[in-house]
Amino acid sequence: MESSASRIILGIDPGSNVTGYGVIQMKGSKISVLDMGVFKMPKGDDHFEKLKAIFRSTSEIIRKHKPTEFSVEAPFYGNNVQSMLKLGRAQGVAISAALSENLPVFEYSPRKVKQSITGNGAASKEQVAAMLKQMYGITIDEKYMDATDGLAVAVCHAFSNKISATDDKVSGWAAFVKKNPGRIK
Amino acid sequence: MESSASRIILGIDPGSNVTGYGVIQMKGSKISVLDMGVFKMPKGDDHFEKLKAIFRSTSEIIRKHKPTEFSVEAPFYGNNVQSMLKLGRAQGVAISAALSENLPVFEYSPRKVKQSITGNGAASKEQVAAMLKQMYGITIDEKYMDATDGLAVAVCHAFSNKISATDDKVSGWAAFVKKNPGRIK
Repeated sequence: MESSASRIILGIDPGSNVTGYGVIQMKGSKISVLDMGVFKMPKGDDHFEKLKAIFRSTSEIIRKHKPTEFSVEAPFYGNNVQSMLKLGRAQGVAISAALSENLPVFEYSPRKVKQSITGNGAASKEQVAAMLKQMYGITIDEKYMDATDGLAVAVCHAFSNKISATDDKVSGWAAFVKKNPGRIK
Repeated sequence: MESSASRIILGIDPGSNVTGYGVIQMKGSKISVLDMGVFKMPKGDDHFEKLKAIFRSTSEIIRKHKPTEFSVEAPFYGNNVQSMLKLGRAQGVAISAALSENLPVFEYSPRKVKQSITGNGAASKEQVAAMLKQMYGITIDEKYMDATDGLAVAVCHAFSNKISATDDKVSGWAAFVKKNPGRIK
């Protein structure tokens, strides 16, 4: 990872109904917000239609901003197995959009994201949003709360990576590529 | 769906460690097996490495056999939420490989697959394998049991689709495309 070069990080918080995203640019330790928003899934019962929308929209954001890294918010718990299967599919589709562009993929738990932004792993969404607003002067809107989640996981990755040399918990596809250069085309 | 034309169906049973697949050709009501097998995930803890392997291998099978339809075995229950999240991701990645090639995607529960092949939704894996062996003269091997699961979900789709005109439960991306021609590029 060339920490001195400009990096562009796409953060995604995939969901069955709404997916939030944030794109940041990192030059040295300076972070600026390039884009943030949400894409809403088509209404209705067609599950594949929703997955297709996630794949397409994520691919479009990748083509538009050409991120160098992909960071996804990934809860490891949930209310029931059916909702986790759905969530897993949504995550899998978003991750595929990144993998198909050969982006390194990283994942962070909601707790890790909150901890990273506010210093408190149990912070509320509002506290995370307020901190991001203060740091980057972004406009926070009720309807942008999911976008904020996407931005937060991008920023979390930016912060984590700054200490990647000493943080052996940071891993992912990039680590795999680094360890196995001959196996990647 | 042009039922008189030759159709090629790829069936996939995605898993975190092994993914089974089967490819069948359907001319009228005659079904022949073109290919079946498994791809094993790279060993180790790198979850994204495994997802990447599923995406790549599924994409390679699609490029090789150029299926016209994609059928995935999808349990809707499981032991715990973490295993379901992993399974959901594996499914999401395999489904993405199909969606990115604009294939219509269909899913069937294990019970539906067993019912379709053997007439008994509670049939054992061995009973499903024996029936497939009898119908198509394939060689069943212990190490091919996952391949058999892939083949079974392809055959299940072939059987289901024969009655698609009267079976309103058959749906998926193809149905969406048909209903929304203007929304697909």
